Amino acid sequence: MNHPHLPFAAKRPFPDALLSELQALLGERVSTKDALREHHGRDESPFDPMLPDAVAFAHSTDEVSQIVKLCAKYDVPIIPYGAGSSLEGHLLAVEGGLSLDLSEMNQVVSINAEDLTVTVQPGISRKALNEALRDTGLFFPIDPGADASVGGMCATRASGTNAVRYGTMRENVLALSVVLADGRVIHTGTRARKSSAGYDLTRLFVGSEGTLGIITEATVRLYPQPEAVSAAICSFPSMTDAVNCVIQTIQLGVPVARVEFVDALAVRAINRHSKLELPETQTLFFEFHGSDAGVKEQAETVEELAKENGGTGFEWATRTEDRNRLWSARHSAYFAMLQLKPGCRAVTTDVCVPISRLAECVGETEEDLRASSLPCPIVGHVGDGNFHVAILIDPDKPEEIEEAEHLNQRIVERAIRMGGTCTGEHGVGLHKMGFLVTEHGEDAIDVMRSIKTSLDPRNLLNPGKIFRLRSAG
Amino acid sequence: MNHPHLPFAAKRPFPDALLSELQALLGERVSTKDALREHHGRDESPFDPMLPDAVAFAHSTDEVSQIVKLCAKYDVPIIPYGAGSSLEGHLLAVEGGLSLDLSEMNQVVSINAEDLTVTVQPGISRKALNEALRDTGLFFPIDPGADASVGGMCATRASGTNAVRYGTMRENVLALSVVLADGRVIHTGTRARKSSAGYDLTRLFVGSEGTLGIITEATVRLYPQPEAVSAAICSFPSMTDAVNCVIQTIQLGVPVARVEFVDALAVRAINRHSKLELPETQTLFFEFHGSDAGVKEQAETVEELAKENGGTGFEWATRTEDRNRLWSARHSAYFAMLQLKPGCRAVTTDVCVPISRLAECVGETEEDLRASSLPCPIVGHVGDGNFHVAILIDPDKPEEIEEAEHLNQRIVERAIRMGGTCTGEHGVGLHKMGFLVTEHGEDAIDVMRSIKTSLDPRNLLNPGKIFRLRSAG
Repeated sequence: MNHPHLPFAAKRPFPDALLSELQALLGERVSTKDALREHHGRDESPFDPMLPDAVAFAHSTDEVSQIVKLCAKYDVPIIPYGAGSSLEGHLLAVEGGLSLDLSEMNQVVSINAEDLTVTVQPGISRKALNEALRDTGLFFPIDPGADASVGGMCATRASGTNAVRYGTMRENVLALSVVLADGRVIHTGTRARKSSAGYDLTRLFVGSEGTLGIITEATVRLYPQPEAVSAAICSFPSMTDAVNCVIQTIQLGVPVARVEFVDALAVRAINRHSKLELPETQTLFFEFHGSDAGVKEQAETVEELAKENGGTGFEWATRTEDRNRLWSARHSAYFAMLQLKPGCRAVTTDVCVPISRLAECVGETEEDLRASSLPCPIVGHVGDGNFHVAILIDPDKPEEIEEAEHLNQRIVERAIRMGGTCTGEHGVGLHKMGFLVTEHGEDAIDVMRSIKTSLDPRNLLNPGKIFRLRSAG
Repeated sequence: MNHPHLPFAAKRPFPDALLSELQALLGERVSTKDALREHHGRDESPFDPMLPDAVAFAHSTDEVSQIVKLCAKYDVPIIPYGAGSSLEGHLLAVEGGLSLDLSEMNQVVSINAEDLTVTVQPGISRKALNEALRDTGLFFPIDPGADASVGGMCATRASGTNAVRYGTMRENVLALSVVLADGRVIHTGTRARKSSAGYDLTRLFVGSEGTLGIITEATVRLYPQPEAVSAAICSFPSMTDAVNCVIQTIQLGVPVARVEFVDALAVRAINRHSKLELPETQTLFFEFHGSDAGVKEQAETVEELAKENGGTGFEWATRTEDRNRLWSARHSAYFAMLQLKPGCRAVTTDVCVPISRLAECVGETEEDLRASSLPCPIVGHVGDGNFHVAILIDPDKPEEIEEAEHLNQRIVERAIRMGGTCTGEHGVGLHKMGFLVTEHGEDAIDVMRSIKTSLDPRNLLNPGKIFRLRSAG
């Protein structure tokens, strides 16, 4: 589908001389082959691809710096590319240019177990990172649905199911190496757990979606593997009851590690996809981390709160195998939901509201969805107030696209009205640019524009994303 | 004492016309009285005061905006002022101008107990905030030594003894209202727990020390009062043993709420000041938060680890009264230490290193201190890798100042060499400007300069702090 909101700025020329210089630097690691360009000109969003002129694979910070200097010399845009799992059109080459693929920079640079930190290259995926950590007794908790790259997760300020306990990329990135728009390399932050040393450049680059610099190394926090883990599911008569159970859980200080809402349609999708037989109703998935005794205590408290809020069919999964099956089913929800409608793509909403407004926000949304002809399963990181409606559309039917965008707009405007945000974890990309202004106001977006313009005056880094520069009118 | 490093830019003129316009706006809430200017031209740092030309007391965001517009009109600097408890010279009017006192903007705007958030005006102190929260079952954990204002704590990215469990201001500020250098008001963030909606302006202003905007409202996270709290102290044969105990505690995933290192000299100061009889040796103070059973389990685990690392005299304080006495003694450590040397002021170091290097860093520092003629007690937020040496100087003796600065420089350079930071929680102010370049490199400081220049092109907001602008050469 075409991007619904914006005309793009004109495509910029990609001179042969740049290609020659890149080839001299990278040999066969730069290419203009169609298949490669097509692969790099799209992501998991429903937007039609927009192809880069070329794709380059970098192997080091120094190479990234040289590539950026060359592109700057020829005024050619650069779009950093990790795992390609963005949901918001971040990777589309709206002004052409070079897709800079960092997936081969996928090494663990150093594990510092005593400090609970690891330094990695940006192309490593979250699963590969946890595989590398297996013998340390530590883990990296941030888990978006896809097996995203750590660099991409930094760039979109990603989170996932563990954020209620462990925070998001905002809280878990300690330091970055970043290549600036002129090719200079800076290092932000340190491995110390905290610092008041000047502006928080680390958190400025986290969530900047490739528009301020290219992340070439990241130091992130790790956590001890809990001594004990247990999981549970429970059905609720309504979303309000489920949310009240979660609010009371958090207010009691129960350090729940994960608590996920899945609506009846999403449970059906999960059942089909993962060969499970969960009751197809409003369901909460819980996970508890701690000592043996601590996990038991948390579980008992939550079971009681669930019952007080009308929860039924509370079931424990303490065996690792059962637990993994349950959570792997939850993690595959996005792909399971796509299978509800063959050939569809999903317009995925991502609002996040203060938890006191969550039941109301989901309730009003459900009313909208009932009036829609499209299948719209809902899953939510309910402890954070963040939920996703996967609006399943046939990308060839303009009327379905229009309906999906209309639903999305109503959901976003509702969330913002309730003191929330248009995106809890996916980022703005192309899809939320209009909503960003509604959420923050023109003056705050102006501050973002000033920062962008001061760090990337020629708009070389992932142009056309997050907000429109004034000059692009 | 004079600032040891820098010549300042020239003082700027403060026109009578500006004073008249401010008086028309604020009546008696603007003043040029000497006593008031003297009070506002200094802080808790050892630097000689540098007086503002006038002091204004604002009562609303709108007033702050109007004041800033007037100052901008006359090109006069503005220095936001909260509780006056900065340790790094943040409040000195190095180019003259207006001290903008926000202490009368000290209201709680709204408590949202279900969301665990509170919105406050910047002048409220952390103790007053917790007093206002008393009946909610919630608390705000960030606790620098002084009863600082929440606005000032945002501005310096403050932390304190609870950061090991609850994080710092970096993790706990959700949203801000900020008056920009041209008087426009922006709102950053939302009350939602997480967001990927554009650049993280909230965290850009947190830690910007009044140089990018004036914080006029802040929404911060709250936590449930723990069901149970217990505290303990334990003596250790060496810093290395104490640190090893803490590393093992954290690696086991024990969610210790506070763990503080106090050296023998600091214990002596605390004993004298708070009428206690603690053994005057290397000591760790612990605090545990959780359920009754959870606190007991944490405590037993830590007692065992302490014993394995040579800890002796492990003592519990489970009665609220004993616990408060212990922690109030720890909190008054700064003022207790000042009393070790009548009439002294303290040059306070604030380095923070990865915890794996903490024992080595403190050990080498202790060697430096043994060779010094100055009393230098040490306290540390050991779970964060952050420690403070209070170098007690007679501000009238240049040789003591010189020795203190020499010690500080060695400590900072050591910490940076070990992968740490020059300031864990106090901020840069005037005191760490040189070290900031060592820590981040010129190119990263250039990025900070670009941001400053793009948001405050005429350098009106707390000029002369954090870094030198190139133009001030």
